[in-house]
Amino acid sequence: MKKKQKLVVINPNTSTMMTDRIRLVADSVVGADFELIVTNPPSGPVSIEGYYDEAMSLAGLLDLVTHHDDADGFVIACFDDTGLDAARTITTSPVVGIGEAAFHMASMISNKFGVVTTLARSVPALEHNLVRYGLSARCSGVVASDVPVLEVEAQNGKAYKRIAAEVENAIKNDRAEAVVLGCAGMAELALALQRDYGVPVLEGISCAIKLVEAMLYLKLENSKVCGYAQPRLK
Amino acid sequence: MKKKQKLVVINPNTSTMMTDRIRLVADSVVGADFELIVTNPPSGPVSIEGYYDEAMSLAGLLDLVTHHDDADGFVIACFDDTGLDAARTITTSPVVGIGEAAFHMASMISNKFGVVTTLARSVPALEHNLVRYGLSARCSGVVASDVPVLEVEAQNGKAYKRIAAEVENAIKNDRAEAVVLGCAGMAELALALQRDYGVPVLEGISCAIKLVEAMLYLKLENSKVCGYAQPRLK
Amino acid sequence: MKKKQKLVVINPNTSTMMTDRIRLVADSVVGADFELIVTNPPSGPVSIEGYYDEAMSLAGLLDLVTHHDDADGFVIACFDDTGLDAARTITTSPVVGIGEAAFHMASMISNKFGVVTTLARSVPALEHNLVRYGLSARCSGVVASDVPVLEVEAQNGKAYKRIAAEVENAIKNDRAEAVVLGCAGMAELALALQRDYGVPVLEGISCAIKLVEAMLYLKLENSKVCGYAQPRLK
Amino acid sequence: MKKKQKLVVINPNTSTMMTDRIRLVADSVVGADFELIVTNPPSGPVSIEGYYDEAMSLAGLLDLVTHHDDADGFVIACFDDTGLDAARTITTSPVVGIGEAAFHMASMISNKFGVVTTLARSVPALEHNLVRYGLSARCSGVVASDVPVLEVEAQNGKAYKRIAAEVENAIKNDRAEAVVLGCAGMAELALALQRDYGVPVLEGISCAIKLVEAMLYLKLENSKVCGYAQPRLK
Amino acid sequence: MKKKQKLVVINPNTSTMMTDRIRLVADSVVGADFELIVTNPPSGPVSIEGYYDEAMSLAGLLDLVTHHDDADGFVIACFDDTGLDAARTITTSPVVGIGEAAFHMASMISNKFGVVTTLARSVPALEHNLVRYGLSARCSGVVASDVPVLEVEAQNGKAYKRIAAEVENAIKNDRAEAVVLGCAGMAELALALQRDYGVPVLEGISCAIKLVEAMLYLKLENSKVCGYAQPRLK
Amino acid sequence: MKKKQKLVVINPNTSTMMTDRIRLVADSVVGADFELIVTNPPSGPVSIEGYYDEAMSLAGLLDLVTHHDDADGFVIACFDDTGLDAARTITTSPVVGIGEAAFHMASMISNKFGVVTTLARSVPALEHNLVRYGLSARCSGVVASDVPVLEVEAQNGKAYKRIAAEVENAIKNDRAEAVVLGCAGMAELALALQRDYGVPVLEGISCAIKLVEAMLYLKLENSKVCGYAQPRLK
Repeated sequence: MKKKQKLVVINPNTSTMMTDRIRLVADSVVGADFELIVTNPPSGPVSIEGYYDEAMSLAGLLDLVTHHDDADGFVIACFDDTGLDAARTITTSPVVGIGEAAFHMASMISNKFGVVTTLARSVPALEHNLVRYGLSARCSGVVASDVPVLEVEAQNGKAYKRIAAEVENAIKNDRAEAVVLGCAGMAELALALQRDYGVPVLEGISCAIKLVEAMLYLKLENSKVCGYAQPRLK
Repeated sequence: MKKKQKLVVINPNTSTMMTDRIRLVADSVVGADFELIVTNPPSGPVSIEGYYDEAMSLAGLLDLVTHHDDADGFVIACFDDTGLDAARTITTSPVVGIGEAAFHMASMISNKFGVVTTLARSVPALEHNLVRYGLSARCSGVVASDVPVLEVEAQNGKAYKRIAAEVENAIKNDRAEAVVLGCAGMAELALALQRDYGVPVLEGISCAIKLVEAMLYLKLENSKVCGYAQPRLK
Repeated sequence: MKKKQKLVVINPNTSTMMTDRIRLVADSVVGADFELIVTNPPSGPVSIEGYYDEAMSLAGLLDLVTHHDDADGFVIACFDDTGLDAARTITTSPVVGIGEAAFHMASMISNKFGVVTTLARSVPALEHNLVRYGLSARCSGVVASDVPVLEVEAQNGKAYKRIAAEVENAIKNDRAEAVVLGCAGMAELALALQRDYGVPVLEGISCAIKLVEAMLYLKLENSKVCGYAQPRLK
Repeated sequence: MKKKQKLVVINPNTSTMMTDRIRLVADSVVGADFELIVTNPPSGPVSIEGYYDEAMSLAGLLDLVTHHDDADGFVIACFDDTGLDAARTITTSPVVGIGEAAFHMASMISNKFGVVTTLARSVPALEHNLVRYGLSARCSGVVASDVPVLEVEAQNGKAYKRIAAEVENAIKNDRAEAVVLGCAGMAELALALQRDYGVPVLEGISCAIKLVEAMLYLKLENSKVCGYAQPRLK
Repeated sequence: MKKKQKLVVINPNTSTMMTDRIRLVADSVVGADFELIVTNPPSGPVSIEGYYDEAMSLAGLLDLVTHHDDADGFVIACFDDTGLDAARTITTSPVVGIGEAAFHMASMISNKFGVVTTLARSVPALEHNLVRYGLSARCSGVVASDVPVLEVEAQNGKAYKRIAAEVENAIKNDRAEAVVLGCAGMAELALALQRDYGVPVLEGISCAIKLVEAMLYLKLENSKVCGYAQPRLK
Repeated sequence: MKKKQKLVVINPNTSTMMTDRIRLVADSVVGADFELIVTNPPSGPVSIEGYYDEAMSLAGLLDLVTHHDDADGFVIACFDDTGLDAARTITTSPVVGIGEAAFHMASMISNKFGVVTTLARSVPALEHNLVRYGLSARCSGVVASDVPVLEVEAQNGKAYKRIAAEVENAIKNDRAEAVVLGCAGMAELALALQRDYGVPVLEGISCAIKLVEAMLYLKLENSKVCGYAQPRLK
């Protein structure tokens, strides 16, 4: 029997409740050829909301990449794609962020997609990523639902209503043809929103897992020249 | 036993030799959950080299999409992504072009990728696509190898040398961190080039198949509002 | 007496009523040095609303270009500029699309122009063209009036009101300094709208005819190197 | 007999020799329905090479626009399109610059065009204009021939050789499909270069005249709202 | 005692009342190492509102630069940055415009800044500058308060209310994190607006003075190659 | 006597030799009104060369910002502008990166500037920053000199020659009008290069110090709304 490939999903914040929810989503989509590990660093910010939390999560996140040096692929399960470039320098295994995963997937099923995230403080970092990836012209707008990361709840609650209102707004006013949910914690809402609003609603965890699986089947590794070259020993 | 999902790969030109080669590549990567059909239109241009061939292949290509109305996913196996938008309007199944597939994949394993295609006449259409997808800033340059589509041969021949020279140039002079082969017929050269030049070399057929598979696992359909809305009955 | 130059205006849909209306507009502006032919393909979509219709009109459109091989210039009278690049590869005569014609003209009489088209499904294709031509930064927005192509009527009817509402909105809210009517069928409304709203209102048919005439006076032909090179015999 | 429309071509420098050469070119293309006036200000810089000369020519240029208040259309015959926006605020007649005219025309007959100008000091201003018009992505590069404005001579001389070398370079190395000559004084070289290099070579004077004529036939005026509003009396 | 460096602030319009107000602002921030001269041309437009006034102010402005040939640095105190490039060609001393100064400073303390200016006619020129400087993506929008330059009054009056309404709108609706006041005459309102709205409110005069001072301490001069090369004697 | 304002310059790597060299440069430009502290974290990477080092330096860098909570302004003395956004969220004092400082300054004294940095692995991060700041169109190119950070030596050595060769190349081939040295360790070479090549050569340390001083004189603080809002207590 062929050995399963090891796919490590890193929640870069320290909320084990969030890690558990990410694991639920990841388990539901991961392929039979892969062994799934979903983990988080022992220390660092409990949720990632904006630039400071992003920065403070990096050491823990990169330690996990180093620790799992036998992993065949990695997913960074924070919608800000925290540490994506840094992680790519210390492994030849593909590393995919859930933000970029959702953006790229949405680009192939819609002319323009909207992004609905948690707090206003996170919006500039997401816009920054879109510019950097080259996909900002494909995005109809990044908006905040004003629901903090750890308060995104089940689909019937108040959080759903606030997020749904922004999804509706993106479709009606910004002419979004698909909507990306801009927080790992919103993953469970995607199907209900898709059903209620009739456009594709993407969440990044499952997109990223399937993209890494695809890369592994294709034997694609990170480039190791120039920007992602192995750090020099100093 | 679960029924296999039907994945239709359309070579939009009428060269059955090209279709056979595409089938070889596709067969080698398609997942066990999928039934693969690789086909081409009965009439139209024998190879697609530039805007005119693209246009003349569209009716045949779209007929095949209509004909395979039970397909769960489509791949358009021409690097120009001919008819991609039009195809998306007549099916809810995801449709992925081999050009966009390679560009998006390359964007997740390199800071910048180069593109090596066949003839100079094809370059503007590819640049046009990159601008449109939003990925032109991620591309270090699109260059022609001056090898016509139907003359791209096995890896030891003259074609390999000309293509390899452009791959080397992209890495050394344009600082490409990965290289995308810009023609369905070059797929078989990818591994040899990757081995010889030490950077990821992507070909779009396998990328596109894995992306459609991913979309099917994720139950992602094309958006049917606005740009990809079903054509009106007239 | 100097022989008149032959200027062929192609309506790429098969609505002869539309062709007749285009002829009316074209006749009213064509110069005395030109023989005007306004025609449409015998088969294909009856109106062009979005990507699918665009694609299905191409073979008929390009056949007409080939058929009129003695034409000195061509106008493609569909606001999506369907087949523009492909047509340029098979003739040395200049070929101008009515969309690009209006965009370029509007760029020289305003800082920013708005575009009012028919249905939402056509908007992404027009935005795509603007990006491609490089003029999207000159456009204050592309909006749909929700008036189908074949229902654009005379200026006193309901269609006029809906289109006028969008023209007003473009001027007041998007700060458009000129407005381009994004459908060949709206040509007759331009003067009334210009009078009612006090800004230049451009329709593409007359712009394109005058641009082709200008090119003919200047003896400008399409470039035949690289992207518009003559298709190879295969 | 219908009264001819008055078309005023302003050479914004004070070289009457240059004005005479512009007149020669203009005369050779102007239509029979137009009365042509080619003029220059009585004082100001003798040639326009870069930002300072541009600025110092403005008062004289705008005085001429005011003086010819019965003109039906204007051409600004300096490739930097000096004073274009300012001129548009003081007349409802269309005003076209020879730089923009050539850029827009070249955009409709090629995928990318190169620009060959006189001195390096003029390059940033032209690049600035291209960015501003939105057409920089359509330009394969602006290069200087190091031939000063007033030394551009007949086609057999040294100037021709230096300019031709840059034209060749643009086609071969930058993949220009057409070339724009970036100086009013180079107009006479266009045909010879076009013949020698086999791509369209555009000069702006004739392009601008034909574009203004087109606008007049179409009864297009400058927008007078927002940016081109009539200056307030103060 | 070290000799003071001479810093010349040029108000390019002829309103001495405006010059006096600019002097008040400049005096309040200028460093002890600098001798400040605030001046305006003897003739030209009394206020600069849009392209025409800009153009007509240039000769007077550049004469002042030439006249103060012993100045160590210049500030152009018109928010349109009138004549900035031309001035740089005729001096090696740094020349900073108050528009660019505020834009660059705002870029270093916010993710996005809004711009509130006087009249709609000035908006396109400011947008043009932002595009040219490269900072348009950092700007959340340029809006007009409909307060003419010479009617911008003290902070309790009607002008304050209109300007404040636009500041509030920029923060609430456009997500501006800082606001730039787009007119030299608004400088005195900055502190009150900053206090009332809780975001940085920048005015360009003081920003420009401090930037020129910084350049002088750093011994930075304008580049004199290519675009800012000294005009040729003719 | 007025109390001096406290300006903290953070070298985010742990090389005290580098910190000493940064202090030398900073001391030579800091104003008399400021108390200068130049420091580095106790642990972290010894030099910052690319994405991984950047990430691993963040915790130490941000700890220093927190530690110096009485600082009036900060400079981040790493050309990658590591942690710039994160630092801005935890202080109201202005924080300026030496990369952005040099880019903004160069934008005001040249039409285009080149950037010469150390190793190829650092180039993508710098290009990323330029895109993000909006200044990539102002940059003629980022090139690597292949001189590692800690081996940049005095001006007569081999390092000088390699860096000088790239400076010359930027001016001659990329048409750079000014050159930015892309590494804190290159600061001492700026004057010699400026003298040898006749264009402004900027190094970021002194630019950043003068910009922070300017902000302090202007009482400008970081915006604390949206992206730079104080991190939430969790």
